[in-house]
Amino acid sequence: MVERESINQVALLQSLAQGYLGGTIKVKDIRAVGDTGIGTFEGVNGEMIVLDGTVYQALGDGRVVVADDKVVVPYATVTMFDDDVALDLTNVADKTAFENALNKAVKEYGENSFYMVKMHAEFSSILFRSEYGSQQPYPTLLEALKGKQTEFTAKNIKGTLVGLYCPNYMGGLNTPGWHFHFISDDKKQGGHILELSLNKGTVHFDKTDKFTMMLPDDKHFHEFNLAKDMKEEIRSAEQDKQAGMK
Amino acid sequence: MVERESINQVALLQSLAQGYLGGTIKVKDIRAVGDTGIGTFEGVNGEMIVLDGTVYQALGDGRVVVADDKVVVPYATVTMFDDDVALDLTNVADKTAFENALNKAVKEYGENSFYMVKMHAEFSSILFRSEYGSQQPYPTLLEALKGKQTEFTAKNIKGTLVGLYCPNYMGGLNTPGWHFHFISDDKKQGGHILELSLNKGTVHFDKTDKFTMMLPDDKHFHEFNLAKDMKEEIRSAEQDKQAGMK
Repeated sequence: MVERESINQVALLQSLAQGYLGGTIKVKDIRAVGDTGIGTFEGVNGEMIVLDGTVYQALGDGRVVVADDKVVVPYATVTMFDDDVALDLTNVADKTAFENALNKAVKEYGENSFYMVKMHAEFSSILFRSEYGSQQPYPTLLEALKGKQTEFTAKNIKGTLVGLYCPNYMGGLNTPGWHFHFISDDKKQGGHILELSLNKGTVHFDKTDKFTMMLPDDKHFHEFNLAKDMKEEIRSAEQDKQAGMK
Repeated sequence: MVERESINQVALLQSLAQGYLGGTIKVKDIRAVGDTGIGTFEGVNGEMIVLDGTVYQALGDGRVVVADDKVVVPYATVTMFDDDVALDLTNVADKTAFENALNKAVKEYGENSFYMVKMHAEFSSILFRSEYGSQQPYPTLLEALKGKQTEFTAKNIKGTLVGLYCPNYMGGLNTPGWHFHFISDDKKQGGHILELSLNKGTVHFDKTDKFTMMLPDDKHFHEFNLAKDMKEEIRSAEQDKQAGMK
């Protein structure tokens, strides 16, 4: 039986940041424990969006494909989505305003839990990123993203945002706060959200009181000193923007 | 089906350190996910030793009882024990020498995994601690232990050590390194191990590549700022010694 009430994480965001871009856990293993979530692929070959049980791969060239079950996943967080609570939003000017609204809800429902969120909406404007993959020997995440990122802006586009909230004590295994990915309704565009605006939308929250970390069964994984502070590198990798949207 | 290959943790060592000494998870829930492990009880009312599926409670007055299924557990780590590898030891002078031998094994098997260990032996000498419980409103862990700890030294005693190793990146949710509890063969003595020596013993390791944290479903739990650095308090609470053994 699959544990619906667990956030299931492959490895650590810290191992990805340090350059553990391979692994032993596969798309098939991800699908077994979650129908909704975000992540990346071997070599950081694009952004992962898991929606309704399908694992989508948003590639550096702008295409979106359904990932093969055999593709390796160095980092991801997924869960079986349950619609616990909903939050109606109007006139969201930017990502900061969006996060502020979500933070208010999290404060009410419990800041020390995990939340997966999902919102289907028409975005007035959205800026998202993907990237071309790196080859072995793998560099760090920051190096892997350097010069390999591609950004896409879309106006009045219908699609779904999938996001994860980690509590503030998760700085050693992940990063506290929010992280959002996007996939369009036609499943042709997607990536890591850098900016967004929308007139109307409803965010659905899956409040989750269990966190499971699945470590790769791999000698290479044990060579990393994962206690190293990667906060700045993670912030830079997740939030770096080549161009503003406004 | 119970996941045998997961370390299952109730709440965080950090929430215990900050004074979250109650909870909603019960001994029954612990037994459902682990037959081996360590922890404590509501109000830090003694030390928990889980061995062969039984949850023992070593009380401040020196007695050991089998914990009732309804007793609340604010913090514990347990797993279904599988004997993956064994390490023979001879002439272990103290706890530091014991940990050094175990660390060598962990370096070989993979430092970024979790390990539950079990050793049945005759201890030439062992110093262990337990404590009387605190009442609500609960103080921090350090305050809860102050003046409430009791220490016991035993010579040539047969019993079982149960211990947990957390990887170095676990400083935000637990504490990196080793933590050992003890229970005597007659199940009449036990507690948190402060010192030990033995002539001969075999340590059995359960190497575990999954970590699951079970958060209490409790409003009070969300009031704690769990990102607060509790390293020193945890070190002090776990390693404080009122009297040396040597």
